[in-house]
Amino acid sequence: MDKQLKIALLGLGTVGSGVPLILKEHKEKISQVTGMEILVEKALVRNKAAKAEIAKEYGIELVTDFKEILEDQDIQVVVELLGKIEPAKTYIVQALESGKHVVTANKDLLAQHGSELVAVARKNHCDLYYEASVAGGIPILRTIANSLAADNIHKVLGIVNGTTNYMLTKMVSEKLTYETALEQAQQLGFAESDPTNDVDGIDAAYKMVILTQFAFGMTLHLSDIETKGIRGLALEDIEMAHQLGYTIKLIGSSSMLEESVTAEVGPVLVPSNHPLASVQNEMNAVFVDSAGVGESMYYGAGAGAKPTATSVVSDLITTAKNLRLGISGHQFNSYKNETKIASDQEIISKYYFSIEVPDKVGQFLKLTQIVTNEGISFDQLIQQQSDGERARIVIITHKMTKAQMKQVKQAIGQIPEFELLANYKVLD
Amino acid sequence: MDKQLKIALLGLGTVGSGVPLILKEHKEKISQVTGMEILVEKALVRNKAAKAEIAKEYGIELVTDFKEILEDQDIQVVVELLGKIEPAKTYIVQALESGKHVVTANKDLLAQHGSELVAVARKNHCDLYYEASVAGGIPILRTIANSLAADNIHKVLGIVNGTTNYMLTKMVSEKLTYETALEQAQQLGFAESDPTNDVDGIDAAYKMVILTQFAFGMTLHLSDIETKGIRGLALEDIEMAHQLGYTIKLIGSSSMLEESVTAEVGPVLVPSNHPLASVQNEMNAVFVDSAGVGESMYYGAGAGAKPTATSVVSDLITTAKNLRLGISGHQFNSYKNETKIASDQEIISKYYFSIEVPDKVGQFLKLTQIVTNEGISFDQLIQQQSDGERARIVIITHKMTKAQMKQVKQAIGQIPEFELLANYKVLD
Repeated sequence: MDKQLKIALLGLGTVGSGVPLILKEHKEKISQVTGMEILVEKALVRNKAAKAEIAKEYGIELVTDFKEILEDQDIQVVVELLGKIEPAKTYIVQALESGKHVVTANKDLLAQHGSELVAVARKNHCDLYYEASVAGGIPILRTIANSLAADNIHKVLGIVNGTTNYMLTKMVSEKLTYETALEQAQQLGFAESDPTNDVDGIDAAYKMVILTQFAFGMTLHLSDIETKGIRGLALEDIEMAHQLGYTIKLIGSSSMLEESVTAEVGPVLVPSNHPLASVQNEMNAVFVDSAGVGESMYYGAGAGAKPTATSVVSDLITTAKNLRLGISGHQFNSYKNETKIASDQEIISKYYFSIEVPDKVGQFLKLTQIVTNEGISFDQLIQQQSDGERARIVIITHKMTKAQMKQVKQAIGQIPEFELLANYKVLD
Repeated sequence: MDKQLKIALLGLGTVGSGVPLILKEHKEKISQVTGMEILVEKALVRNKAAKAEIAKEYGIELVTDFKEILEDQDIQVVVELLGKIEPAKTYIVQALESGKHVVTANKDLLAQHGSELVAVARKNHCDLYYEASVAGGIPILRTIANSLAADNIHKVLGIVNGTTNYMLTKMVSEKLTYETALEQAQQLGFAESDPTNDVDGIDAAYKMVILTQFAFGMTLHLSDIETKGIRGLALEDIEMAHQLGYTIKLIGSSSMLEESVTAEVGPVLVPSNHPLASVQNEMNAVFVDSAGVGESMYYGAGAGAKPTATSVVSDLITTAKNLRLGISGHQFNSYKNETKIASDQEIISKYYFSIEVPDKVGQFLKLTQIVTNEGISFDQLIQQQSDGERARIVIITHKMTKAQMKQVKQAIGQIPEFELLANYKVLD
């Protein structure tokens, strides 16, 4: 008979209850691959009565005090699915300190305290895996850590927030406004009643911290990532972008420039024939540009109970294999570099400007002068039909530095009759 | 100082010479991840003079006799890049038998003798990795073996031949004929002067054998895979498919039906909004449908010296890590199932028929009768403008079994004035 690996779940919500389900459904395959039977022994819940049924179904003992898990010597792995920082962080640290391995899907925690947790895991020779923290069902972290270990990554671009991608898809395909798209996403359960973390790009920024760690071995703070969301994104800009051959997506990007890194989150004009442009609805994708493999993309469900639980179980399988082979305690990502942040002078991109101007002679000239003063030229330009008083001019520039872009922005801001409606990066 | 891992290359062509290049360029990262320096000590070549320059550049000793590698106790890993069956197979077996680990990119060999080689590796406690054998730079085998180990795969669909995907892309976007597209592919070096293996789907079938092994743990023979290529694919069918909302791609598919598997290679009508439809030019992609993760797709370069060499080096890194950890000899894919092949009665799909009929009254009725006799109905239908004598009728059926499809095909064949021009699977 197989050896048993006893685990405990912190949280028994939709993802949590998916874990024993998957372990049961794929029991045979898992035991074939790991030589072990993985058993959910205990689960930490707030309200035992509410979870009595599922606990009974899978034979899980419910506890309301983490100590009952921490002090249970039989439990070798703790799966944290509480989310947010506390008490998750304290529980994970305590688990690692008492020699228990940890699997978590907690992106907020990993993005903000990843280095600390990794250090605690290492000190205690414990495994700490968190594949599900970025892009749910897409095994992107493991792919970067293992398969791209021989490669030199230049750039990681991700559609890593399903809610906003769903909203953008609806805005493009059904010409819904931002507000209607948000309502729909909320009705479908893709967006929470307070959608701030999603629509303001914060969730995506968390994920870019983790992806940057894996791709470049560098540790960013959230404040290092310039983060713009899709709140208030105008349907007009989506349509203008479309006319110019682009699809607007909320992109988290992290790039290596010489020896420094730059990461940001914001709406980006993606060429419509780029693989990221066709990522629809709530799906996620991470696009990697690297020296060896060239362009590659990893596409799948970014959230959802089953994909996330499957990803958690794949981490459990890795942990089980490591235990079996006696090689626990190696870092999920062993690539490390000194963190250097690129300056605005080093960051180069095309940019999209959408500007409202008075509908009278000489406006184009003024705009051209601003851009020309920075030594930049236009790549594409559209003047939208005016209402007689105000006209909208949309331009895509040739490549410029972020510093130049900021100069142009400032110069536009100084002309009282100009209004800068939108300003986004354009993917090459 | 790092431990050294000495390796030998069999073959020093474009992929072979990429290996020392990548090992050199990413030396620091590789040593960080593996704790080892990987050194190419020897390379087996046919003509020493022709490879003298590259040998000198990387300090590689050239040999023309495999014995000089086999009997060199310092060499722990042999990287086979000769291609084809012999002498590659003999060399790999000999290397494994003398305790050397093996990395190979040889799909022909793995597809035809994989089980035997895996058994030899296991017997000798040696590693045998072959990530580069399927879809070059896409780490699909490792992803299935590791990240999808907790999942239950229903279906794997792959655009796994770059040459034919390039040709099809040109046929769609530039309305090139099959012949012109092939010429272009040959000029660009994507297609060989004898393109049989690519255009007849044989190369794709090799890869489906390997993918089936990983996805379902089942061992197929090439003869188990019904293989149709794109030779002679008509531009008219590509355009008809487009009108009906589909893009024709050469798809290798492997599906699990209850407990049996079915795999085939052939042109398939892919809905234009399906992620596989937007895979352009020589790029490859593998689409996986599984119980847990749902739909996921892995996209990248399928061939080319650098992507393939990068993939080979990632296998070398895994081998190095295993050596370091003392865990060599575990199988790349440990998932095993009894191989059962599905019958035509179990395989269900929509099908596309393109039929030339005389341009006179009653033809539709005849066709409808044939299909209705099988209990099938049409999903979509187009009658193309006729030249006055012959008309082309194109139909997409509702779902039917492969057995029914064959009946319909036979019945059409029995009507002398009907000519079945094409008959493809339609992806749902």
